[in-house]
Amino acid sequence: MHPDLPAPSVPRSRDSLLFTPGPLTTSLSVKQAMLHDAGSWHFEFNALVASIRRRLVSIAGVSPHDGWEAILLQGSGTYGVEAVFQTCVPRGGKVAVMANGAYGKRMAQMLAQASIDHVVLWTDEDKPVAPEALSSLLSADKAITHVGMVHCETTTGILNPIEAVGQIAKAHGKIFVVDAMSSFGAIPIDIKKCGIDFLVSSPNKCLEGVPGFCFVLCQRASLLKSEGHARSLSLDLLDQLRGFDRNGQFRYTPPTHAILAFDQALTEFDAEGGVTARGSRYRANHQALCAGLAELGLQPYLDSAVQSFIITAFPFPAEPKFNFDGFYRGLSERGFIIYPGKLTQVNTFRIGTIGRLFPADIQQLVYAMREILTQAS
Amino acid sequence: MHPDLPAPSVPRSRDSLLFTPGPLTTSLSVKQAMLHDAGSWHFEFNALVASIRRRLVSIAGVSPHDGWEAILLQGSGTYGVEAVFQTCVPRGGKVAVMANGAYGKRMAQMLAQASIDHVVLWTDEDKPVAPEALSSLLSADKAITHVGMVHCETTTGILNPIEAVGQIAKAHGKIFVVDAMSSFGAIPIDIKKCGIDFLVSSPNKCLEGVPGFCFVLCQRASLLKSEGHARSLSLDLLDQLRGFDRNGQFRYTPPTHAILAFDQALTEFDAEGGVTARGSRYRANHQALCAGLAELGLQPYLDSAVQSFIITAFPFPAEPKFNFDGFYRGLSERGFIIYPGKLTQVNTFRIGTIGRLFPADIQQLVYAMREILTQAS
Repeated sequence: MHPDLPAPSVPRSRDSLLFTPGPLTTSLSVKQAMLHDAGSWHFEFNALVASIRRRLVSIAGVSPHDGWEAILLQGSGTYGVEAVFQTCVPRGGKVAVMANGAYGKRMAQMLAQASIDHVVLWTDEDKPVAPEALSSLLSADKAITHVGMVHCETTTGILNPIEAVGQIAKAHGKIFVVDAMSSFGAIPIDIKKCGIDFLVSSPNKCLEGVPGFCFVLCQRASLLKSEGHARSLSLDLLDQLRGFDRNGQFRYTPPTHAILAFDQALTEFDAEGGVTARGSRYRANHQALCAGLAELGLQPYLDSAVQSFIITAFPFPAEPKFNFDGFYRGLSERGFIIYPGKLTQVNTFRIGTIGRLFPADIQQLVYAMREILTQAS
Repeated sequence: MHPDLPAPSVPRSRDSLLFTPGPLTTSLSVKQAMLHDAGSWHFEFNALVASIRRRLVSIAGVSPHDGWEAILLQGSGTYGVEAVFQTCVPRGGKVAVMANGAYGKRMAQMLAQASIDHVVLWTDEDKPVAPEALSSLLSADKAITHVGMVHCETTTGILNPIEAVGQIAKAHGKIFVVDAMSSFGAIPIDIKKCGIDFLVSSPNKCLEGVPGFCFVLCQRASLLKSEGHARSLSLDLLDQLRGFDRNGQFRYTPPTHAILAFDQALTEFDAEGGVTARGSRYRANHQALCAGLAELGLQPYLDSAVQSFIITAFPFPAEPKFNFDGFYRGLSERGFIIYPGKLTQVNTFRIGTIGRLFPADIQQLVYAMREILTQAS
């Protein structure tokens, strides 16, 4: 898509639905919570931030009484992952990155740019990362201090085995960092059983808030051990925690409106029934998608055994006349925004099934796809 | 203020007015622009981002034809300042920081944390930074490559002489970095005459958008010279520019709603009459504030010759019974949020006069202050 194409001149009666891994379609009530200007220093706003932090710890199934903290940080989810590494890896530390897609690669890239020593255990994009390979690596390379991986790799939608990897990391006494950006809130994560020390996620994935910040769940004690390591002020997660400790405030201007929206999003999350109910709806969305596209002759790129219900990659239809730009544009004209592929070997498009979407929305998308593919063939 | 104080149980009919340096009171129409979910990969959103970038360059009084770029970056304003230093200072570079308040100090702090060599030219908080001191320093210390300073230091509200400093920096061939967070859009800045290489500002100051990102104005050629210097991926300003170059997109999830709000804020900025009109309204706010508080026996901390119309610090009233928490809370109960002081030597409170505020709002604030101070005495 060319960035300078003009917007349609006739406004639509409603927004397009976003079948993407985020930003997502959110409820109107979440967006309406942004119709207020909050003072970021004011005690009412601080109380709201404190409440959000407690609610996140609770969604993770852990407790502040066991030393768990949720630290909100301005910026996208990538900032949160980088903040963990920039803050927590000591000089002389080394990170083993388990990667099978673009987000695993990005971990390696941020470590390289911060001059943090690391090694990448690469797995093919259609295969889960390999715990046994980590086991060998950790036995062989004693310099490794941290293990990092992505839970749901949205490059393909594959679900990686965080529990198996985490148990190996812990058996070797390593710090375990998980990018759970697109899974937290819909796929159950037993943070203790997985041995997770730092879990990074975002308000605008399965929790259905709007983008503007991210959050890190961790043991307070683990973070306190990072004293003096941070290589960036903005991304200093320990200093961010100390800011909240000191006066309940963000150190620097927070995205107040996005935080008001998140409070409402968490209320709607609870009302729906939490992780289980949210996951069930997304699973129903994913099943409706796969059933519908199967009728159009389209099968997911991944084996169903490793496919998440978050986002699904589909290889392009076999018709030689298929043109992704035309397909994308046709769907966009009908009010459906899909996502391009990100695979290195195979041409795919991706359909996200998270956000304020229901199986009926998926069916409408499938009808539109059928119409476009029929016209094109 | 204790962070865990409960919010009032009876909702108000309207939001409190924010007399702070940001987040600010914004117009309802700016907030209503956030009632939409935009796809961050979609061509309509990309076109909007491109348009915002062009409008910012134009507000700065320069042109893309002369190589000027506006680069939006996720995070608070501090992230933008740090991104400039983390991206543009080469290994072995050294920054001279001109400081007379908390934001100048923060520049030094971010340089220290990024292990970037620097020297601080400190001036008392009630005095503008001293161009002549920079001249001597640059003659004496040839290792210095960059000069950084804050235009309007909101610690006190003092306006610093960017043109005089910039001309010295340029005479010595140094890169000049200006934090114009709270001045851009209301105080005219001749970016060329000031010799500014990198200007950092925020959508939620004088441009009256909402927080969630910041922006950097710079010469494309200056930024391209930074190849290979960046110490952080998230804060890599050059890579962010290349992302926009490549496909019109942010590299990582942008705060889409805050960007939709900013587009509306820029439209309202133009409708009001741009920098001149916005500055005139803020000046009228500031004058109404000083006149009103003078009647209550309160004078600004700064000499009027160096006082900006952005934010004004007032020493606490002389009455021994004055209690800031009670004063703050009394104003808050009446729907006015003010800002605490940040000075090291003198107890002050601060009143911001930017945002969607008018002299009539200032007068209401003054009436409320009079009432509270009279009750307390």
